[in-house]
Amino acid sequence: MNPTMKPADIEKNSFAIITKELGGRTFPEGQEDIIKRVIHTSADFDYADNLVFSPDVVQKATEALRQGATIVTDTNMALAGINKTVLGKFGGQAVCFMAEKQVADEAKKRGITRAAVSMEYAAKLEGAVIFAIGNAPTALIRLHEMAAAREISPVLVIGVPVGFVNVVESKELFIGGDIPYIIARGRKGGSNIAAAIVNALLYQIYAREGFEK
Amino acid sequence: MNPTMKPADIEKNSFAIITKELGGRTFPEGQEDIIKRVIHTSADFDYADNLVFSPDVVQKATEALRQGATIVTDTNMALAGINKTVLGKFGGQAVCFMAEKQVADEAKKRGITRAAVSMEYAAKLEGAVIFAIGNAPTALIRLHEMAAAREISPVLVIGVPVGFVNVVESKELFIGGDIPYIIARGRKGGSNIAAAIVNALLYQIYAREGFEK
Repeated sequence: MNPTMKPADIEKNSFAIITKELGGRTFPEGQEDIIKRVIHTSADFDYADNLVFSPDVVQKATEALRQGATIVTDTNMALAGINKTVLGKFGGQAVCFMAEKQVADEAKKRGITRAAVSMEYAAKLEGAVIFAIGNAPTALIRLHEMAAAREISPVLVIGVPVGFVNVVESKELFIGGDIPYIIARGRKGGSNIAAAIVNALLYQIYAREGFEK
Repeated sequence: MNPTMKPADIEKNSFAIITKELGGRTFPEGQEDIIKRVIHTSADFDYADNLVFSPDVVQKATEALRQGATIVTDTNMALAGINKTVLGKFGGQAVCFMAEKQVADEAKKRGITRAAVSMEYAAKLEGAVIFAIGNAPTALIRLHEMAAAREISPVLVIGVPVGFVNVVESKELFIGGDIPYIIARGRKGGSNIAAAIVNALLYQIYAREGFEK
C-alpha cells in the first residue's frame, strides 16, 4: 500500500490496471475513455459489454459541451458527482429539478413521478441540453415521449438507471433510435455512472485541448 | 413496462426480485436489509458476498442514529445520497468537509490528500459519529491511524471505497479489528454504496418504529 501516492498517479495506475485486465480489447475512438472511466468508478468490468453508443455521439456531445451545453440530471447525487469546475470552464452548467417543491407538488397532483415532472421542467431550458439519467426509468420514458413529439431535441441522453423494475425496458426504448444516446444496457447503472460518463466527456475535451485536470 | 407504478411499489417489487434471485440465502438479522439495499442500488449481486460486518454493528449503529449521531462522508456525492429527511427526524446531520477551502489549502501544504485532512476535521466533531467512506482509501487509512491512537472512537466506519490502487488494502485494515465496521471487501464500492448503507440503517429504525417512508 502506498498512501502517499498522488491522486493523479493513482488515477493513471488505475487506468493502466483496467487496460491490462481488458486484455487487449479495443473500442471505437472516444468510447474507450468513457468505458474505462465507468469501470474506474464501479470496479465492474461488465460495463465493457453493457455500454452502447449511438453513431458519432461522443464527437457531437463533446462539441456541444465545448460550447457550453447544459447538463440535466435526475438526482442530486449525479449532480454532485459532475466536475462542475471543468464544466464551468466551457461556460456550461449542471442542473437538477428533483428537489424543487413545485416539482413535488405537481407530481403529487398529477399522480406521476417527480422525475417525469422534472424532465418537463428541463424541457423549457434554452440551448443545447444533455440529459444524464442514472436513477429513474420514468425520466427516460418521459424524455422519449417528448422527443418523439418533437418537444425536445437533446444533444445526448445518457440513460443509465439502475434497478429491477422498468429499468431494462426504459433503456431499450432508445437503442437503435434517432435520439443520440449512451445507454448502459441491462439492470446496471446509477447516479455515479451517469456522472462518470459526463466527466469522461469533459476530460476528453481537456485532453484534446491540453488542459491540466 | 408499467411506468405508472408507484415508487413504493417499485421498491417492494425490486426487493422481491432480489430476494428471489438470492435463492433462499439467509443473512444474520439486520444485515439482510443492508445487503439487499446495496444490491438494489447497484444491481450487483457480488455484494451478497463482499459485505462484511463487525459483531453487533447494525444494532449499535441504529441505536446511535436513533439518538442523533452525525454522519461524515468523504464525498459530496455520498452526502447527496443520504436521506437527510429521515436522518433529521432523529436529530442527526450529515457533513462533508471535502469542498472546504481550508481543507484543500492544508492538504496542499502538507502534501497529503484532502480526504485525509477532511477526516482530521471530522475528528473534532462532538458526540457519536459514523464515517461513510465511499471513495478515498486515504480517508480510511487516516481514520484507522486516529482510532489506533485513540484520537477518535467512531460508532461505525462504513468502508466502501471503489478502485484499483490502495483500495483493497485500506479496507482490509479494518476487518477483524476493534473499530466497528461495515466493509465491502475487494475493489467494489462507491459513494452510492456508502449512502445506501446509511439509508438502510435509517430505514431499519423507521421499520422498527412504524414510521412511513
